[in-house]
Amino acid sequence: MNLQHISWTPDGRFRYLDQTRLPQEELYREADTVDAVIEAIQALRVRGAPLIGVAAAMGLAAAASRLTAEELTGDWLARAVRRLSAARPTAVNLTWALGRMLEAYDRAAGHGGGTQQLIAGLRDEAQRIWDEDAAMCRAIGDAGQPLIAEGATVLTHCNAGALATGGIGTALAPIYVAHESRRRVAVISTETRPLRQGARLTAWELARSGVPVTSIVDGAAAAIMAQGKVDLVITGADRIAANGDVANKIGTYGLAVLSRAHGIPFYVAAPCSTFDLSSPTGANIPIEQRGLEEIDTAPGACALNPAFDVTPGEYVAALITDLGVIEPPYVDTVPGVIGAEGSSRG
Amino acid sequence: MNLQHISWTPDGRFRYLDQTRLPQEELYREADTVDAVIEAIQALRVRGAPLIGVAAAMGLAAAASRLTAEELTGDWLARAVRRLSAARPTAVNLTWALGRMLEAYDRAAGHGGGTQQLIAGLRDEAQRIWDEDAAMCRAIGDAGQPLIAEGATVLTHCNAGALATGGIGTALAPIYVAHESRRRVAVISTETRPLRQGARLTAWELARSGVPVTSIVDGAAAAIMAQGKVDLVITGADRIAANGDVANKIGTYGLAVLSRAHGIPFYVAAPCSTFDLSSPTGANIPIEQRGLEEIDTAPGACALNPAFDVTPGEYVAALITDLGVIEPPYVDTVPGVIGAEGSSRG
Repeated sequence: MNLQHISWTPDGRFRYLDQTRLPQEELYREADTVDAVIEAIQALRVRGAPLIGVAAAMGLAAAASRLTAEELTGDWLARAVRRLSAARPTAVNLTWALGRMLEAYDRAAGHGGGTQQLIAGLRDEAQRIWDEDAAMCRAIGDAGQPLIAEGATVLTHCNAGALATGGIGTALAPIYVAHESRRRVAVISTETRPLRQGARLTAWELARSGVPVTSIVDGAAAAIMAQGKVDLVITGADRIAANGDVANKIGTYGLAVLSRAHGIPFYVAAPCSTFDLSSPTGANIPIEQRGLEEIDTAPGACALNPAFDVTPGEYVAALITDLGVIEPPYVDTVPGVIGAEGSSRG
Repeated sequence: MNLQHISWTPDGRFRYLDQTRLPQEELYREADTVDAVIEAIQALRVRGAPLIGVAAAMGLAAAASRLTAEELTGDWLARAVRRLSAARPTAVNLTWALGRMLEAYDRAAGHGGGTQQLIAGLRDEAQRIWDEDAAMCRAIGDAGQPLIAEGATVLTHCNAGALATGGIGTALAPIYVAHESRRRVAVISTETRPLRQGARLTAWELARSGVPVTSIVDGAAAAIMAQGKVDLVITGADRIAANGDVANKIGTYGLAVLSRAHGIPFYVAAPCSTFDLSSPTGANIPIEQRGLEEIDTAPGACALNPAFDVTPGEYVAALITDLGVIEPPYVDTVPGVIGAEGSSRG
């Protein structure tokens, strides 16, 4: 996996691969205003729970570095963070990364730093968030190795790969690590309507990395499972409640139910920053409702377009995290594991 | 429901609504050669198990009526029937309707009829197949009434509506009859990738008929069920084995599994001509694999595109047929019901 889909430009702008153009076109864009970063996140040019946290932090630092001393104030930053946080409601990583940027600003300001020190503090923190994200992906990949047998076929949904993170992905990380270790591993990628992240993004990045990947429509997953073609399922997560309930791309819950019916283990791979201990269960997680034009139905018909669903923790065979594999019951282990590491979100 | 999507032209051609253009455009085409009818069926311009039987019969009669006395022979007909039968492999209605056309020809030829009598025999038989199909739809609609409570919301998959038949549909027939009776009934229509028959066709014909319809992506069905928004599921069938196993549009089997997990009754509506007693179980039903371009995945990725899946009869709460509602166990009742009526396929 060698993909520079996010980076800094030499003059400190945030550069990103516009994922809405894949796989037809590799189009890179640059952002150095808060508006441009919000637009990129809302239009899903950058998407994936971990990546939007990294992108918001890098974009915020890039925007700050264009400001004069008069403009770069705590008020400006607080307003920018509020607006960026609201860009998408479900993933917790966005709020988490922006919280770290606020703390970094306060630290630099507390040391009596001038504008250049404030900007440097924000840039350094954004770079750290990116670096930590890449390390987190690698740790998830390593943690998942015992679950991927030689010759295994993994079904995944949506894109929780390199394109969704600042590293080698979450759900795809164990697959990339196994592939690097020259273990045979193949992937079945569900298309993931309405935005087709599976067929467009997961298939693109796996094929580019030499991992055998087969696309199917979402509706074919049950038949493919019944034919014995799937050894395990791994998806990502946008938010995990304290009891192990998982909010992830619409369709995930159905795959979890189908996995159980076919005796296939269903795993969720996500960094601990995805845990939201303030949500006791999935019922507390806000679910983004997206535009009806994504469904493109006939005139006169209505449409419902929830972007995410909630999979009860009881369906999840294990959580593959950067702190290791967590097995049920989640209600006891998850707060313990997270608490022991002292997550900065507390 | 007032839809003239198939008809004869005044000069005896077969006229049909090109369903690949819906919902953007209502484009009618005409066919009077076997090649044109095969093209229309293979390109899914006419689709739906009952409709392709009717269309093949009408198209065959139209093609025959263009022939000279020298051209219209038993050999010509046998070859045309063989080619039309092979146009799509899964639905049994195609073979069944063409078998009736062969018998009609033999009857006319047996009476020593000339070319005009042969053509009239074929046209009359095609018209009868169409009329019977419309009556069959109405009978399915009537049979299903006890299952549709006032205010019910029915989830359906693909299009088993008027557009799939020569009448008011199969899965949608009970809904149209309830709507005509001024009972409140609403429909949730799954998009049905890859060809989007739900969002394009089911939503179009229901909205046009004033039945409230809401489109969702296939992956959203599980979440919508978990929210208690679905009272029952009704799908069509392309072929039903002797034990009640149902071959239908890819995604049907997954919906059946999800229905059971959520305690929602899963019904299949189909005419008795869909029963194939020569297939003891669903394992004997050939499954059409369609082109990979329908999936449109990234370069370098593979794709699998089965057009149908098989739902074990144990998932089917009841079969809604033109001979009434058939309940499990199917292994005893289905051959009995069909046999008692003396299906022409024996």
